[in-house]
Amino acid sequence: MAKRASDNKDGICSRSQDYSQWYLDIIKRAELAEHSAVRGCMVIRPHGYTIWEKMQRELDDRFKATGHVNAYFPLFIPLSFLEREEQHAAGFAKECAVVTHHRLMSQDGRVVVDPESALEEPLIVRPTSETIIWNQYRNWIQSYRDLPLLINQWANVVRWEMRTRLFLRTAEFLWQEGHTAHASEAEAREETTRMLEVYADFAERVMAVPVVKGAKTPGERFAGALDTLTIEGMMQDGRALQMGTSHYLGQNFAKAADVTFLNRDNELEYVYATSWGVSTRLVGALIMSHSDDTGLILPPKLAPIHVVVVPIYRDEDQRQATVSAAHALAEQLRPAGLTVRVDDREGMQPGAKYYEWELKGVPLRLEIGPRDLEQGTVALVRRFLADEQGLDEAAIRKARKAFMPRDQAVAAIPGILEAMQGELLERARRMRSARSRVIDDLDDFGRFFADEGGGFAWVHWAGDADDEDAMARRFETSIRCIPMQDHIPEAARGTGTCIFTGKPSSQRVVMAKAY
Amino acid sequence: MAKRASDNKDGICSRSQDYSQWYLDIIKRAELAEHSAVRGCMVIRPHGYTIWEKMQRELDDRFKATGHVNAYFPLFIPLSFLEREEQHAAGFAKECAVVTHHRLMSQDGRVVVDPESALEEPLIVRPTSETIIWNQYRNWIQSYRDLPLLINQWANVVRWEMRTRLFLRTAEFLWQEGHTAHASEAEAREETTRMLEVYADFAERVMAVPVVKGAKTPGERFAGALDTLTIEGMMQDGRALQMGTSHYLGQNFAKAADVTFLNRDNELEYVYATSWGVSTRLVGALIMSHSDDTGLILPPKLAPIHVVVVPIYRDEDQRQATVSAAHALAEQLRPAGLTVRVDDREGMQPGAKYYEWELKGVPLRLEIGPRDLEQGTVALVRRFLADEQGLDEAAIRKARKAFMPRDQAVAAIPGILEAMQGELLERARRMRSARSRVIDDLDDFGRFFADEGGGFAWVHWAGDADDEDAMARRFETSIRCIPMQDHIPEAARGTGTCIFTGKPSSQRVVMAKAY
Repeated sequence: MAKRASDNKDGICSRSQDYSQWYLDIIKRAELAEHSAVRGCMVIRPHGYTIWEKMQRELDDRFKATGHVNAYFPLFIPLSFLEREEQHAAGFAKECAVVTHHRLMSQDGRVVVDPESALEEPLIVRPTSETIIWNQYRNWIQSYRDLPLLINQWANVVRWEMRTRLFLRTAEFLWQEGHTAHASEAEAREETTRMLEVYADFAERVMAVPVVKGAKTPGERFAGALDTLTIEGMMQDGRALQMGTSHYLGQNFAKAADVTFLNRDNELEYVYATSWGVSTRLVGALIMSHSDDTGLILPPKLAPIHVVVVPIYRDEDQRQATVSAAHALAEQLRPAGLTVRVDDREGMQPGAKYYEWELKGVPLRLEIGPRDLEQGTVALVRRFLADEQGLDEAAIRKARKAFMPRDQAVAAIPGILEAMQGELLERARRMRSARSRVIDDLDDFGRFFADEGGGFAWVHWAGDADDEDAMARRFETSIRCIPMQDHIPEAARGTGTCIFTGKPSSQRVVMAKAY
Repeated sequence: MAKRASDNKDGICSRSQDYSQWYLDIIKRAELAEHSAVRGCMVIRPHGYTIWEKMQRELDDRFKATGHVNAYFPLFIPLSFLEREEQHAAGFAKECAVVTHHRLMSQDGRVVVDPESALEEPLIVRPTSETIIWNQYRNWIQSYRDLPLLINQWANVVRWEMRTRLFLRTAEFLWQEGHTAHASEAEAREETTRMLEVYADFAERVMAVPVVKGAKTPGERFAGALDTLTIEGMMQDGRALQMGTSHYLGQNFAKAADVTFLNRDNELEYVYATSWGVSTRLVGALIMSHSDDTGLILPPKLAPIHVVVVPIYRDEDQRQATVSAAHALAEQLRPAGLTVRVDDREGMQPGAKYYEWELKGVPLRLEIGPRDLEQGTVALVRRFLADEQGLDEAAIRKARKAFMPRDQAVAAIPGILEAMQGELLERARRMRSARSRVIDDLDDFGRFFADEGGGFAWVHWAGDADDEDAMARRFETSIRCIPMQDHIPEAARGTGTCIFTGKPSSQRVVMAKAY
């Protein structure tokens, strides 16, 4: 069942067979998202959207706990605003959705654009909101007393991407963008780091995805930023995925929008800025981090349904008895804050139900049959084991299932879910360790990516932008980040020699193939 | 203080002086929203956005409790989709934001639209999503087993309005749109009514705004609907505001997008649809329903801050003692689920703080001075009284304030807030009663609106669309709704004679001037 090839429209391709196809199969079969009639724009289906809602709630709570408030700024940006910050313009004034007219008309029974409704100035659908937000901040900030301004926005943005991939890269996507204003560089830099820590904490504790925290090289910075911090996760195919970024923008956007403040010394100064964001791309990261050839695997903290209860019966009497026991069991579990679904659909075999809920990543399944009614028991089936390495499919299936008294199951389930949350993080950490390598030789580096599956290569680096390009062309890898000092594993610490230029290097960077 | 004219940039115009200006003054001074650099698009500032977030949470909980799930559909709609449903096209294929290009380029140091990036088919920024959503539903619905499909979307939409008004009518606004699919007309109509009831319950219990529930006349229906239900609230100037609508769409959109299903008799049938929505317009309704000449008044369920605590002191010793007592008091209140703000800003007089928080609508203020420390007391000040009719400003100020032991205040506050929630609804009901009139004579009708301030006129009606237009031209009123039978007040029940045509009428309708 788990290894059906993707040419079977109901199946999921295995990861070893074709990782990219496996990813798309899961999204389709678990009903997470799909393409729409509009090029590059996806539809996020309810099961996928619920995961995003849970991410939003967790992130929003963390933003508010660190003093931020939400607001909303316009979808459209006047074309001229993009010109204001030179580097930002170079980065974002490219593939955009451009609104040029504001009226339709009927013509020969068709609806057409009214040529007389051309806008004086075209509008860009926001690819990011620094320019429009800082234009507004000009009215809100006069003195240091108005600072810091700690604002976040949940919104949709559009970047006219040519090659799209569901969740990872779409023309329209959903995200949050924090835009803060500060009275000093030190305070703004502190905010930049604080929000990266919030993202890292969320990735590890909620998504169960371990991340490397670090800074981007100058060529990889956000357009207009003086510094871009990033968290980088490793997917099961060894590729890196940039999961969130936090930018120190200096006074660039304040200068572009002429936002000054009277500081404590009564001097006029430009305001210091940060911005930071994560997007629906995180749903893609979540899928690729944990799922298996059977389908989606979700950390309990982000699972739309925690427990599914499936009644098993052969006749109408048994149906009534087991369905009723299933509902009673669900009612016992819900007070613990769990989302429990009783799958009492008729005309469907239990096996088909198991298949569907495993595909959709429900962490726990309870099966109740006639014998369980007599004995007061239930079968508890986990979606995954703490460690499945080296076990064949039959052994895994067996080990995932346990029989126990129903009251014992009710008491144990919250703890089991909490344990599963931790196990997923541990599994992901083991996977990352197994695919991380400290490398000092360019041939070893080439072999690691060409023959050994690749992963994170910790290498010394002292090259410039041209050297970076040369490495990228040769190996199809990139510098994912210059890790924070306190975040470098023991084996990778210390100074050394640049793997590419042979120049002295003060620390190692993480190189990988990336999404 | 409360009656400063609006030419004072820090003041609020009184309602009696200029109701429209009063509304705009409150929005500006309470920092709820403001205009942006993009024509017709508003910026929702944190204080205003928090109110919207609280509305969202309350509504979303109600949607989920009635079986709905959230999803997300594209921002853009292909132009040709708008042609599919004839009436819908006539209603919405007008003032839209039209995306015609997808790339910018540099030219002589300026950023311009790349003429070579013209889209083959222009895209419309969604004014509403029926067409794009039903195009997707075609893939999701095959049999009656796939129904009902109960989906809601939280999104931004754009309608290129010429005359805008903050919150009430803006080019871009935030809303939710429910789009459900059903196997029968009866079930779809039931859903249409259910969601109207959800809106009415939310308006009354959460917003504290009483509403009349009813149906729109054919001319006022949503473009493409067979029936449009509405809730109509009355603002303090006697005008009606349409606060939410729920549409029975029949099979119109299913036919336009070719969405059929196999029914229980194994016959192919078109799917039955509903859609329903409320928007950030509700924030405008909230402001206009309750606020006074001092500023915003908020029902506790939607207040971003429930209680503000202001320490009062003359010297540094007193400052430390009262600030510390204020924080201790806040900590005592928070476990009850209250949002409490201690205003310990230095260099600001207590009066200025009172003024600011009254302006922003905080329901309760606690004042703690040195004498309160000695006596263990606190001054508790309510933002409004249950009934302020006939009292002058000094009397109102006096009655709003009470002194009591601190522990007593802590114990009483949750109950006081709950009572204030109910009092606001009662105040709004009294105001509506005072401005509602059962009218049977056209001259009386004219006098009611011309000389007596107007409000809701309950009149018998049997006219057609032309008659409706004629009434509207003559009195600048419109039929707000044909009220639901069980929702007509005693005095307005029964059959009668149409006020305009003299024809027999089966029931009264509500006529009013409207926003």
